[in-house]
Amino acid sequence: MERHFDVELNKLRENLSDMAALVEGMIDNAIKALVERKEETLGNVFNDEVEVNKKHIEVDEICLKLLALHQPTAVDLRLITSAMKINSELERIGDQAVNISQNTTSLVKQPFFIQLPIIPQMTEITKSMVKDSIKAFITKDSDIAKNILLRDEKVDDLKREVFKKIINYIIENPAQTEYFIDLLLISRNIEKIADHTTNIAEDVIFMILGQDIRHHHLFDEHKT
Amino acid sequence: MERHFDVELNKLRENLSDMAALVEGMIDNAIKALVERKEETLGNVFNDEVEVNKKHIEVDEICLKLLALHQPTAVDLRLITSAMKINSELERIGDQAVNISQNTTSLVKQPFFIQLPIIPQMTEITKSMVKDSIKAFITKDSDIAKNILLRDEKVDDLKREVFKKIINYIIENPAQTEYFIDLLLISRNIEKIADHTTNIAEDVIFMILGQDIRHHHLFDEHKT
Repeated sequence: MERHFDVELNKLRENLSDMAALVEGMIDNAIKALVERKEETLGNVFNDEVEVNKKHIEVDEICLKLLALHQPTAVDLRLITSAMKINSELERIGDQAVNISQNTTSLVKQPFFIQLPIIPQMTEITKSMVKDSIKAFITKDSDIAKNILLRDEKVDDLKREVFKKIINYIIENPAQTEYFIDLLLISRNIEKIADHTTNIAEDVIFMILGQDIRHHHLFDEHKT
Repeated sequence: MERHFDVELNKLRENLSDMAALVEGMIDNAIKALVERKEETLGNVFNDEVEVNKKHIEVDEICLKLLALHQPTAVDLRLITSAMKINSELERIGDQAVNISQNTTSLVKQPFFIQLPIIPQMTEITKSMVKDSIKAFITKDSDIAKNILLRDEKVDDLKREVFKKIINYIIENPAQTEYFIDLLLISRNIEKIADHTTNIAEDVIFMILGQDIRHHHLFDEHKT
């Protein structure tokens, strides 16, 4: 029985790692389409979303089976309930990559073009957060998880910088309002992904330490 | 033992109902401040957020205790894991009410003023979705839950309408760009709340029917 439990746990870890790799690739392809101003890579994002959704349901099924058949307690129980939460976060990161793709589809249709280097900069940090959040879960490393919380603040700062820049751009080029709003919404999608990795990091810390660190920094967001 | 389980289950239901009532009030106060153009009611939103966050942690603790001590299976197991998910959604609805409040704080500072009746209209539908999502959970009524999914489409339509209107307003009044973007972001916050109630509705349907209806409508969002 114990062996079967471990086999299922490994399946759970593998599935979550696969989901994390998929959503990271989706973010990559979505931002590539934006930066290179072409829609070719967006097809991959939509295809990968289907895979992520399948895994989302599969992971929940594995977790329910583990809870029903093995009735775990303490650390194992926290591991499985955390996995259920991480599963939801990863699926929503996938949703945000789809949202970036949809906003990019609208944006590349417009003849206007400007590069805003903060966007790929935000993306790089956010992708590293996705990678590290699943690494923290798999290796049970609370230091990696805690470091994610710091990077979230950096992404929030960049989001606010984008906001200010976009306001000024629009005031100077009102005819390009839709273009700039698409860009603003994309920066919000990226920041939301960073938020989801922060949730994962908090779940991982709870899983490892049994200590709920959520809600220790209230009202630290602005204009989301 | 069975009695203790029921007592704890009732505590769980009560806590989630309280959270739902709290976040509904937060949405009300946030939009009231926006429509009446005054910040007085926003203090309540920030205070209630503290309460919601406390309950968020409390509900998770009750769920973990129920899983560890009573090792439920089948329907009871689905009820508790669904409650954990609904708990997260309600907490995030509270976060969005806080975001509306922060965007409103920025908006009311600006001398410009225009009423956009779609915003309170979206809010009314969304508030009814919050109310019904917890009602569906408590009464185990899948019809109420399914009806929420229909209203989500209506809110999405209104969100797109706001987007188009805002683009035109900005083109005509570029000096008021920040005001209009604050308004646009508020419409997105409301639409996000509707999304969270949709997630609750899907969790409730799964809890009742044991049937996972998530991901049956792919790519039905645009510009989120």
